[in-house]
Amino acid sequence: MNLILLYPGELSNSTAVVLKDRRFEHIRDVHRAQPGDSLRVGMLDGAIGAARVVRLDRLSVELEVDFSAPRQPPAPLPVILVLALPRPKMFKRIMQTVATLGVKEIWLIHSYRVDKSYWSSPLLSDSMIQAQLLLGLEQAGDTLMPRVEIRKRFKPFVEDELPGLLADRQGWVAHPYDAEPCPPASNAPALVAVGPEGGFISYEVDKLQEAGLHRLSLGSRILRVETAVPVLLSRLFPLS
Amino acid sequence: MNLILLYPGELSNSTAVVLKDRRFEHIRDVHRAQPGDSLRVGMLDGAIGAARVVRLDRLSVELEVDFSAPRQPPAPLPVILVLALPRPKMFKRIMQTVATLGVKEIWLIHSYRVDKSYWSSPLLSDSMIQAQLLLGLEQAGDTLMPRVEIRKRFKPFVEDELPGLLADRQGWVAHPYDAEPCPPASNAPALVAVGPEGGFISYEVDKLQEAGLHRLSLGSRILRVETAVPVLLSRLFPLS
Repeated sequence: MNLILLYPGELSNSTAVVLKDRRFEHIRDVHRAQPGDSLRVGMLDGAIGAARVVRLDRLSVELEVDFSAPRQPPAPLPVILVLALPRPKMFKRIMQTVATLGVKEIWLIHSYRVDKSYWSSPLLSDSMIQAQLLLGLEQAGDTLMPRVEIRKRFKPFVEDELPGLLADRQGWVAHPYDAEPCPPASNAPALVAVGPEGGFISYEVDKLQEAGLHRLSLGSRILRVETAVPVLLSRLFPLS
Repeated sequence: MNLILLYPGELSNSTAVVLKDRRFEHIRDVHRAQPGDSLRVGMLDGAIGAARVVRLDRLSVELEVDFSAPRQPPAPLPVILVLALPRPKMFKRIMQTVATLGVKEIWLIHSYRVDKSYWSSPLLSDSMIQAQLLLGLEQAGDTLMPRVEIRKRFKPFVEDELPGLLADRQGWVAHPYDAEPCPPASNAPALVAVGPEGGFISYEVDKLQEAGLHRLSLGSRILRVETAVPVLLSRLFPLS
């Protein structure tokens, strides 16, 4: 937690907030904050500001927040990430990682090699997804909550929605065969599709290509999804 | 497991091998191989070849291996990775990831923010480390086992050993402050040092700089170690 994130409506008046949850525990146990100490705080979907510890006791911490000199969160990545639903064990970590890296639009889609049972995972509830994304934002020092769309059917997504998503951007699908080399990093908007473990099947790659995606090689090593995503994003976009 | 790795000495004569362990289970359950099927196999620290399934029963699989047209494993990354010992929960995953990405030399070192208890983790035994690296190689389709060195004292490592490691390469320490921008990706040999969660302390960064490392920025987002490592490696080196 490199940023304490506050939620709109949480401030009892314009500047005071009392925290009792894991943010309180973090301020107490990791920051080991004392009254008078200053902390960095962010408003969810808003600016980054400062907070002073007014009081800290066994159950809560009171902060006096100051957004009079607001700073903007780190720049988002100009990417739409289309991800075959990862298996539950990986899902939480990947959601955290992409939020940390600055992805702001994530489409979770079905694919032949996604086990159907994954779609009934409780991890896919709005609140569980938000919880993971929040951890990623707190790690990065970011405030802007990504938007997540879920599509349980591959073909309608690819035929009816994907072309529209590509209206203003280049699209890529990570696929090792007959691929184009990775373009130089740039801030041009892009869409990136990453398959499940084992990859998209040929039919799916063909459909994605018909919709306008280009095949992109990540090299000769076969990477797990959780490794491929940061590798891909840091190849396509400059660090900022 | 994208490559079945065989160990030297495992071949009973020059071409036959019987597997009973998790490789057998993988061939049976994931490949769903039948007698006559062909598989890709690698010799640990050697070449990549082919194998034909001769027999598969409830307890084992017999393979006929063929290294008559050997292929080389993917090119290693020309990097020495110096890593503050990650906390045990992360350690296994990071070892797998760096092996998958092609790192062949890893130095695990102490740092102020490394909890001393981590050094007594059973994960640090040779066999546990090798097991994680093996998983990473199998994922990547690589055969070359990385070398791991362990140094429980920061200062002697940095003063006495690090300068020698830098004799033929540029060295970098990932550190967000007063950092140089990331150089363009190249295959030039490099050494990269990554701190623990919370980062190296100032004293340590100073010592690393004295030894010849340059500060390298990964951008304004604060990344977990397991994310920072793939980001860093894919920025510094081309994908091949």
